[in-house]
Amino acid sequence: MINQVIDLKSIDQNKIIDQIRCLGIDMIHEANSGHPGIVLGAAPILYALYAHHLKYDIDDPNYYNRDRFVMSAGHGSALLYAMLYMVGYLSIEDLKKFRKIDSITPGHPEVGVTPGVDCTTGPLGQGFATAVGMAIGEANLRKRFNVIDHYTYVLCGDGDLMEGISYEAASLAGTLKLNRLIVLYDSNNICLDGSTKQTFNDNIGMRFISQGWNVISVEDGNSYEMISKAITEAKASLEKPTLIEVKSTIGKYSKLEGTNKVHGSPLDDEDITTIKEKMGLRDIPFQVSQQLCEEFQALIVDRCKNLNQKFLEAVSKMSAVDKLDLEYFMNKEKRIDFKNYVYESPEDKIESPRDTSKKVLNSVVANSPYMMGGAADTFGPNKTYIEEAGDFSKENPLGKNIFYGVREHAMGAITNGLSLMGYRPYCSTFLSFSDYLRPALRMASLMRLPNIYVFTHDSISVGEDGPTHQPVEQMLGLRSLPHFDVFRPADANEVIGSYKSIFAKTEDPAAICLSRNKLPILDCTKASEVEKGGYIVLDNKNKLDGIVLSSGEELHMVLEAVNHLKTLGMNIRVVSMPNIKRFLAQDDEYKESILPVGVKKIAVEAASSMSWNSLIYNDKYLITLDTFGASGNYKDVYQKYGFDVESLERKIDELLK
Amino acid sequence: MINQVIDLKSIDQNKIIDQIRCLGIDMIHEANSGHPGIVLGAAPILYALYAHHLKYDIDDPNYYNRDRFVMSAGHGSALLYAMLYMVGYLSIEDLKKFRKIDSITPGHPEVGVTPGVDCTTGPLGQGFATAVGMAIGEANLRKRFNVIDHYTYVLCGDGDLMEGISYEAASLAGTLKLNRLIVLYDSNNICLDGSTKQTFNDNIGMRFISQGWNVISVEDGNSYEMISKAITEAKASLEKPTLIEVKSTIGKYSKLEGTNKVHGSPLDDEDITTIKEKMGLRDIPFQVSQQLCEEFQALIVDRCKNLNQKFLEAVSKMSAVDKLDLEYFMNKEKRIDFKNYVYESPEDKIESPRDTSKKVLNSVVANSPYMMGGAADTFGPNKTYIEEAGDFSKENPLGKNIFYGVREHAMGAITNGLSLMGYRPYCSTFLSFSDYLRPALRMASLMRLPNIYVFTHDSISVGEDGPTHQPVEQMLGLRSLPHFDVFRPADANEVIGSYKSIFAKTEDPAAICLSRNKLPILDCTKASEVEKGGYIVLDNKNKLDGIVLSSGEELHMVLEAVNHLKTLGMNIRVVSMPNIKRFLAQDDEYKESILPVGVKKIAVEAASSMSWNSLIYNDKYLITLDTFGASGNYKDVYQKYGFDVESLERKIDELLK
Repeated sequence: MINQVIDLKSIDQNKIIDQIRCLGIDMIHEANSGHPGIVLGAAPILYALYAHHLKYDIDDPNYYNRDRFVMSAGHGSALLYAMLYMVGYLSIEDLKKFRKIDSITPGHPEVGVTPGVDCTTGPLGQGFATAVGMAIGEANLRKRFNVIDHYTYVLCGDGDLMEGISYEAASLAGTLKLNRLIVLYDSNNICLDGSTKQTFNDNIGMRFISQGWNVISVEDGNSYEMISKAITEAKASLEKPTLIEVKSTIGKYSKLEGTNKVHGSPLDDEDITTIKEKMGLRDIPFQVSQQLCEEFQALIVDRCKNLNQKFLEAVSKMSAVDKLDLEYFMNKEKRIDFKNYVYESPEDKIESPRDTSKKVLNSVVANSPYMMGGAADTFGPNKTYIEEAGDFSKENPLGKNIFYGVREHAMGAITNGLSLMGYRPYCSTFLSFSDYLRPALRMASLMRLPNIYVFTHDSISVGEDGPTHQPVEQMLGLRSLPHFDVFRPADANEVIGSYKSIFAKTEDPAAICLSRNKLPILDCTKASEVEKGGYIVLDNKNKLDGIVLSSGEELHMVLEAVNHLKTLGMNIRVVSMPNIKRFLAQDDEYKESILPVGVKKIAVEAASSMSWNSLIYNDKYLITLDTFGASGNYKDVYQKYGFDVESLERKIDELLK
Repeated sequence: MINQVIDLKSIDQNKIIDQIRCLGIDMIHEANSGHPGIVLGAAPILYALYAHHLKYDIDDPNYYNRDRFVMSAGHGSALLYAMLYMVGYLSIEDLKKFRKIDSITPGHPEVGVTPGVDCTTGPLGQGFATAVGMAIGEANLRKRFNVIDHYTYVLCGDGDLMEGISYEAASLAGTLKLNRLIVLYDSNNICLDGSTKQTFNDNIGMRFISQGWNVISVEDGNSYEMISKAITEAKASLEKPTLIEVKSTIGKYSKLEGTNKVHGSPLDDEDITTIKEKMGLRDIPFQVSQQLCEEFQALIVDRCKNLNQKFLEAVSKMSAVDKLDLEYFMNKEKRIDFKNYVYESPEDKIESPRDTSKKVLNSVVANSPYMMGGAADTFGPNKTYIEEAGDFSKENPLGKNIFYGVREHAMGAITNGLSLMGYRPYCSTFLSFSDYLRPALRMASLMRLPNIYVFTHDSISVGEDGPTHQPVEQMLGLRSLPHFDVFRPADANEVIGSYKSIFAKTEDPAAICLSRNKLPILDCTKASEVEKGGYIVLDNKNKLDGIVLSSGEELHMVLEAVNHLKTLGMNIRVVSMPNIKRFLAQDDEYKESILPVGVKKIAVEAASSMSWNSLIYNDKYLITLDTFGASGNYKDVYQKYGFDVESLERKIDELLK
């Protein structure tokens, strides 16, 4: 397809841009669904980037040292796919299947589905913040391996910049001086409901400057040359990330141009015909000029020739250790790494689960080439600070501790960005505030990223801080996320088992929910059993009067209550259930061996009942919590809601009698 | 208690401030839990406000035209409670019970629990954004009723300003020119994990100016006079909200002052003794000078004398209509207002639930004195724009349509603020993006505010936009929120019934989840039955082979499938379940009449299975969705996941055979 004799200087690049525009609106017309406004308005922006700056390999979308591109304005998928057609990653057939079931050109970009898509986007602001994570990753890798040196680009719109997550991420990016992050802001003053004037009057330039960014303005968004010049300037920034505000016209050339009507609905036939006429083209859907395709590819080949090959050669010359390390990032299959993990049980036989977690993380992270993470201003309470790993900053990009500040949402998306770069990242906050990063957790689940979330202060046993800080419904929420693994270990043994289970998988996110309180290390718990989700911790040879299931801190009270009932002659089995979903996924034989049919079962967890409904068929056997907690000493709070040993004993006794 | 002969000019106000500080640290010491840093650092800020600016009635914390105060830095509860002791709303006994179970002085401020607390706070950023809602409400009320004219004040810290929600809310407040919103920013450069330098370098002044705010700086945060002067200046702002950056020292006078160590743990005995020594006081816990209390109250009485009385007199002179309207805001019990509600079924017998919702809202809101709401740049798709109600702005504060922009999270908190002012507010976005406002939904549930959430695009039937826009686990998440009501109507009749059920309650939030698609208006659905949560829509006199439960759009496919199976001789009942929680709350007799024991039951909903586990005991009878959706025409998407009529018929037939 590539014709090397093309005179690059003679290419009429605006014609290529128009071809991209036409493909985009044809796709939307064919799908009868999509967003033509950004296709027509922002095509020159994407073109300037892909034709003149973005480093990639037209033969290998996975070239590791490629510049990353995140279409944060994910509704611009048609524009991106049209561009990826020009690159050669997609076919006209793919474009024709835009937004159709089981195609590789879905409604919003999805990583892993479409070659050349670096990140799933759609929910506004997520892409912007995820790119900050990619840029952090790049900065860290660049320092470690001299073969890494790429940029991270974002295309975003007004919607992205209205979302709080973009402010959070921008504030952190400015503080961390991520100079290789370049955001192209498609500024058209139009949002879905009309003019942005009515709702969004930030002085964007001043705002980004106040957050430590370099800001460049491009007045004519239809000029790829001016946009390209701005990108050149942005790449030269040494201390600051750059925002390039490109003043564009939404729906350029449409009869609806400059209005919100062109944002999210297909154009009518007449409009499409007129648009193509303005470009000197006949309205034949999906017609492309082969010459324009060849010219575009010639530009790319000239600019990106052998980049990948040179990179791989450089990698091959690296030291064996470095090469092995870098390969973790380049190759998903190589990512399991629990071998360096060492943890010894504390001598005093009592330890807060978050302290055990601290020891596990400290032993693993410092030695792992691909773990990196942080906390949302909660290193202290979460105990996720890695002592010997240093703090990530411009001055120390080798540091592994990321001080996210009180920015849970950006933390979630940045964690996704690190994951997309090949890291096995972790992040942490209070379980109650996992709500703040919920949209980013969903993206992690959707992209099946192997992130680790350390959520401490996992129940009403938070105590004094009261109901705003006491999670109740959060574990259910996490358990309901597809592909998302949730562990709630009861003690140090189960914390270790949970981490082992998490590390044994190389995809899908997992949360570990930890009590803040000091808890005895039980004789009956077993790290090795955690992976099954649920197992027997106290049994009885006689005919069972019943089985009590529990998790986390409440397991301790359950054991005490049941042990006392045992002295009174009752035959009760206790099952620890650190991971309900994993237990439900076991085979029937195992499940039956733990929870035999015909025996009464009670679940005890100071959290939403709905987590347990599939195991406990009668609601009266649920000792759970469907209301908010209260402020007080944690023992008083447990008692108030009936989770103290005495209340549990009475209730279990009543139910099993 | 009040001594009118006090010479106000002779009062040593710094002594009062020190007394507040001492009470705060004594409370934290007694509770052995709390945040002394803000008590010591920000006492002069709160004092300047309460002594010299805030308008309130020391005898009636509910005086309606009081200035509102929101402690966004909710961990400063000890400071606030000490202040409220000085005001006279709390006793020393209350302070001694700080953070203890069932006290009225919980760990973080809770509205409805503590007199003088206007808003529950704790999760950072929520208070800031909620105050923006209060200020919107005030602006609207001030235009409507000339007796309303108060300010809304916020005390916030660095943590609040790092949260994305504060940027969102500030951006909107600037656009709406809420000049009576005054934020006191306790700027001490310290966050939980250390210096803010490492993570937060926004130029705060420039940032707020870029968002259309007036910014005032107070260099000496220990000077209540300078702070007071800044507040006077802020009150004079006519076009812009004001941020007053008060440079303070966290933990002032403690040996740990100026460090993160003083933020969140009680001080040791020695430190407390030394602090009190510096103030010339002996360390006797909870010792107060009665004279200082009297002096403080004399200041307030002098400044706020008869404000409430004058307000009530002015109200009594209002027109009968206005008075009735204003009383809605002043009096919770008067808030039911469905009488103006008129809706006629469309003639063509087919209508998208979101269109029915539009008609209901349009008929109610324009006529209701206390409804107001908006959308997160989604008025178009949500259909929540009220045609004859005008758009809220500085120029038109009577407008009821709030253009929130793409700021779901701030929208959620602002809705809470409107609710706290007495409005019955609503807001809207796609159901999938309800995740973005999740933390604010939780606050609404905790405060039991009667907000209405209109969440459209309620399932995979969103179609082309793909999995990022297709909710799956969101309804379960909403259903898991304590006090939160979730409706998923199947057609126009049930939309009407859902709204009626929502309006019939005056507390607790409710969401109505609506399909985007046009759906037939069924003969078998009944508006009047919705309040029961579930009811029979298709029955069979013969012995039942089974019962199929469903909700929303899927009910249509279920009915079609079952009607066909009926012609083949099967006896199947169909139950519409627009509100599972309400059904579960019915008495046993009703539930048994709908879902008799011993009959097989199947649930059909294109959403998380866990919502249905308490009704369906065997997971194989759940035709639900525990994975993400896909991009494609909605019929293809339904088919891919087995929710088309043919698949349902086959599955139901198999399960009931």
